[in-house]
Amino acid sequence: MPTSPFPDTTPLPGKRPLRIGVAGVGVVGQGVIKYLSEHPDFAPAIGEVVVTAVSARDRYRKRDVDLTSYQWFDDPVALATSDAIDLFVELIGGSEGPAKAAVEAALALGRPVVTANKALLAIHGHALAKTAERTGAALLFEAAVMGGTPAVKMLREGLTGDQVDRVAGILNGTCNYILSEMEASGRSFAEVLSEAQAKGFAEADPTTDIGGFDAGHKITLLGALAFGAAPDFAAADVQGIEAVDLIDIRLAHDLGYRIKLIAEATRDGDFASVRVHPALTPLGHPLAQAGGSLNALFIEGRRIGRLFLQGTGAGQGPTAAAVAADIADYLAGGRRPVFQRPAVELQPLKPADHAKRTTAAYFRLRVHDHPGVIAAISDALARCELSIDSFLQRSVQPGGLVPIVLTTRPALETQIDAAVAAIAALDVVAEPPRMIRIAMI
Amino acid sequence: MPTSPFPDTTPLPGKRPLRIGVAGVGVVGQGVIKYLSEHPDFAPAIGEVVVTAVSARDRYRKRDVDLTSYQWFDDPVALATSDAIDLFVELIGGSEGPAKAAVEAALALGRPVVTANKALLAIHGHALAKTAERTGAALLFEAAVMGGTPAVKMLREGLTGDQVDRVAGILNGTCNYILSEMEASGRSFAEVLSEAQAKGFAEADPTTDIGGFDAGHKITLLGALAFGAAPDFAAADVQGIEAVDLIDIRLAHDLGYRIKLIAEATRDGDFASVRVHPALTPLGHPLAQAGGSLNALFIEGRRIGRLFLQGTGAGQGPTAAAVAADIADYLAGGRRPVFQRPAVELQPLKPADHAKRTTAAYFRLRVHDHPGVIAAISDALARCELSIDSFLQRSVQPGGLVPIVLTTRPALETQIDAAVAAIAALDVVAEPPRMIRIAMI
Repeated sequence: MPTSPFPDTTPLPGKRPLRIGVAGVGVVGQGVIKYLSEHPDFAPAIGEVVVTAVSARDRYRKRDVDLTSYQWFDDPVALATSDAIDLFVELIGGSEGPAKAAVEAALALGRPVVTANKALLAIHGHALAKTAERTGAALLFEAAVMGGTPAVKMLREGLTGDQVDRVAGILNGTCNYILSEMEASGRSFAEVLSEAQAKGFAEADPTTDIGGFDAGHKITLLGALAFGAAPDFAAADVQGIEAVDLIDIRLAHDLGYRIKLIAEATRDGDFASVRVHPALTPLGHPLAQAGGSLNALFIEGRRIGRLFLQGTGAGQGPTAAAVAADIADYLAGGRRPVFQRPAVELQPLKPADHAKRTTAAYFRLRVHDHPGVIAAISDALARCELSIDSFLQRSVQPGGLVPIVLTTRPALETQIDAAVAAIAALDVVAEPPRMIRIAMI
Repeated sequence: MPTSPFPDTTPLPGKRPLRIGVAGVGVVGQGVIKYLSEHPDFAPAIGEVVVTAVSARDRYRKRDVDLTSYQWFDDPVALATSDAIDLFVELIGGSEGPAKAAVEAALALGRPVVTANKALLAIHGHALAKTAERTGAALLFEAAVMGGTPAVKMLREGLTGDQVDRVAGILNGTCNYILSEMEASGRSFAEVLSEAQAKGFAEADPTTDIGGFDAGHKITLLGALAFGAAPDFAAADVQGIEAVDLIDIRLAHDLGYRIKLIAEATRDGDFASVRVHPALTPLGHPLAQAGGSLNALFIEGRRIGRLFLQGTGAGQGPTAAAVAADIADYLAGGRRPVFQRPAVELQPLKPADHAKRTTAAYFRLRVHDHPGVIAAISDALARCELSIDSFLQRSVQPGGLVPIVLTTRPALETQIDAAVAAIAALDVVAEPPRMIRIAMI
């Protein structure tokens, strides 16, 4: 029989507080340092913590926290491997460079790592998990996905008793904010993006967010956890929101939909489809109702059915709370594989065949104002065996062009692609149709 | 530095599978036995399990699983303390009697217990946690709340890095099903309840569900986990759905609301309010949209903000998945206090003062068809300093009575109670008004 669990499971010699080193002291790093120094005993009976050392690019940048009482390291690798710390918190970001070097160095020593770095894990997670499990180091990353909403723990631990076949939702708060603002204010993508950058809601270089890559990293991680597979960002099919026009947002709304950037990972036997793309969601759907910078996630398990989770996706407070929860997890002493199965057994799932995916779609096109136009379009769709679900023709515009939007019934992606090509080839069509998928969640 | 975590954290001598004893072989028990026997390695790299012994009231009852290969115990206490098992799964139910005796006996021996028994824990959880922590036994109860949706793990572990001040939602699937069916079919409470009983969605004795007690047990547990306090069901203020009339469901709908059984626990310093009552929720609110037997929960933390969680609340598959997840948790080897803080330090929070609670309310009344009636009612409300938010008067009914419904702005509960009394005392009012709170979530 085990003996009393408190506080003997603390994996530390004696009872001294766990010494934390934080690399990366931006908004989230400052939040973590502030929280841990104000709440050293935030995990009662599990253990105490103390921040002892920090590293950042610029030592003298103005910050909300005073760093002078912590040991300073110019080099995050030196911090990660220093004897001054017991646990390394990596908040530098980026899949390569110092973040990767520092996490690798800590794990190689058997030192536990807590990170918010989704890019690093989505790309190098399998290799890092192998190192971590070889040396016995914990590698925890609750803060990498959905901020303070414990989606990682839910998939890694809470649903161990089920087989999850699908995770799908809204994982990038910046894109969700931009799309929500475009709809609410009737402003263009470029205008709303500029404003978001000015307010600090979007990065100066927004590519990672608006290109769908951040959501792609996150869904890669959630898929790996859900399916017990190696994360493989290279296999993800990623499309961003740069091409979402205000007119599509408005027309989608007229048809009863809202455009969202949807990230989804679906497993089918040894195959997985991991993708990110803008999609129409019905206005009454929980994903359509998750506005602003919220994140939302559906998890579909064979036994639990459908589970829905929604919360703040990022920000100083929520992300720092997730880092703290991971530190408590380390202190509690339990250990599991990084991605559900031992890293040495872990395989990436094979990418599902694009041709076999099913989706419904929204088409927007502009046609010349000629008799027989509708017949020509519906004939083109019929030749691709696509059924029309709804059809909306607007009045003729100056220049003699007529805007048409339609939605299709679910069909194979190849049929949808063929229909786009068939419609584009029609003489009556003024420009290639804009196609946006309709979410099947 | 710790050594390799796999699979050495398994708290078992050597590598033999963890031997599980299951007491209570009803719908959930059969699901657990079936799942564990078909998936002995459901937690890869954490450990294997084997069901070795069972106990139930009736050995020869017809079941979906064959029990002949397991050691049989007539007495669950004998099973709980038998050398044939390493972990005791309690699915008997009920806060007293054999369930309590068996769990106490297992914990006293230092034997881990996994249970779905919310009544037992809401009433005796503090004492059981003390025993568990004294002997070092794990006491896990994910299956007690929200079925396969890991709300317990989320509050106990996922949100350790935050301070949660409120949990509120829909926690009883039977009540939610009955209210949804009444609205959808226009049938009375009694009719829908009978049908639910015939279909097996409600118990033969439905008091625990429809009286709000089951939701009360669950919110008591969630509050204890959220606030790091001793569960204290006796302090919960519980009202069920027996008195919800179809007419209220319809009138609430006309005003833009849906009636739900809401369970909420709110902390304010050393005080807590734990209550269950029917409440009007705005039609567009996520809680209003959680229909049928779904469960849904808001969690409000200082740092994470508002988190929303929705899933199947009960049933064989989800509940068995939760039991399995708890078994994996035990095998993973981490240990935490049962209710966030060590049981010896745990205190119940003081019950919040009823008079200081704020709520908005819905009033339904029938008045005699006299001039000045509306003035008399609004005067009565004004004397209690209650503001009217919406007011709906219907045509005079046969018998000369006029139905009136109104909603108030938020006010102290004492003002609401005083207004009910003041209106009931009016000569023009034919019967005491029916008051239902409006959810403030």
